[in-house]
Amino acid sequence: MTTAANPRPGPDDPHHIGILLFDGVEELDAIGPWEVLSWWTRSYPGDGYTASTFSADGRSVTCNKGLVVQPHHSRDDMPEMAVLVHPGGDTRALGADDEHLAWLRKQRPVVPLLTSVCTGSLVYAKAGLLRERPATTYWGALGGLTENDPTIEVRPEARWVDDGDVITAAGVSAGIDMALHLVVRLAGADRAREVRRGIQYDPEPPI
Amino acid sequence: MTTAANPRPGPDDPHHIGILLFDGVEELDAIGPWEVLSWWTRSYPGDGYTASTFSADGRSVTCNKGLVVQPHHSRDDMPEMAVLVHPGGDTRALGADDEHLAWLRKQRPVVPLLTSVCTGSLVYAKAGLLRERPATTYWGALGGLTENDPTIEVRPEARWVDDGDVITAAGVSAGIDMALHLVVRLAGADRAREVRRGIQYDPEPPI
Repeated sequence: MTTAANPRPGPDDPHHIGILLFDGVEELDAIGPWEVLSWWTRSYPGDGYTASTFSADGRSVTCNKGLVVQPHHSRDDMPEMAVLVHPGGDTRALGADDEHLAWLRKQRPVVPLLTSVCTGSLVYAKAGLLRERPATTYWGALGGLTENDPTIEVRPEARWVDDGDVITAAGVSAGIDMALHLVVRLAGADRAREVRRGIQYDPEPPI
Repeated sequence: MTTAANPRPGPDDPHHIGILLFDGVEELDAIGPWEVLSWWTRSYPGDGYTASTFSADGRSVTCNKGLVVQPHHSRDDMPEMAVLVHPGGDTRALGADDEHLAWLRKQRPVVPLLTSVCTGSLVYAKAGLLRERPATTYWGALGGLTENDPTIEVRPEARWVDDGDVITAAGVSAGIDMALHLVVRLAGADRAREVRRGIQYDPEPPI
């Protein structure tokens, strides 16, 4: 099942999902969605989507808690994207990096769906991509959205905000829920249920 | 707050938590606990615990869905461990690796607390570490526990099974819940609540 807004991609459509990695990326911001999306795309190749990770220069990144991860691609050798996942973490450098912000603005007309996890949305806000849109972010960074762009309608209670061609998620672990929502949009609820079962996502926080 | 069973470690006690990485490790099996435990230990160093990842030879591993991760340590330069976290994924090679199983058996008398996520418990079972104990694993691998050791009391419905000096968790995402349970045991429920809030772990699966 696919929705009218997100038809199954044809052979010439981009159908690749790219997860951005950068120095300071919060580990679970990126790997939560990666687990969901790689499980989906590798278990069900007939759905027509693929997923990979990339960094600006293709070199390994040191995540926010110290894990070193090697991306699959650089920005330049990344397949054309149907979906960009922009995680958060320590995004201060990215938010002050004019070259990164210019690259993001260039993605807007060519990438149909921009998504973020946690403080990834602060970088979108800095790039002007959330203008007059509803959005969310990490609970401790909500003020940063309107500091960067006072036209944003902040939704503090939302686990994720789907505004059509932009989806922003709350902090860290919220990327798992947002990625499952992506599977619902791109391949239907039944498929998303299978992926949820695949990663045995029946959360039972002990406290 | 600490519990009587797990007093705050003294200066001579091991107080390091090691997460094993290996070719075929399921990404979220390892990174879920890493996010919880690195968040805890880096935000609250006064609790006296540290955490790192390691692989047998210290070289990078290719995870089950294709992500390449560089561990902090090799087995040989790993600090003495208070807790071992053994993730799962494609554990067929490990379960047939006599050298790995012998290494695991050597850890039993020196590592006070052995934990696993997903099919990590199948490797513990192969090593004979779950003899006559209650345990769990990934829903799709429950039969593997008793195939490896018919004395194991399988608990298919448990998110994790705490048997004192061994904790086994269910599949993939269950490692997050098990790691939070570890924080409860080692530093108390209040601290675990802070870590849960830190990673905004208020799950809302969309389906």
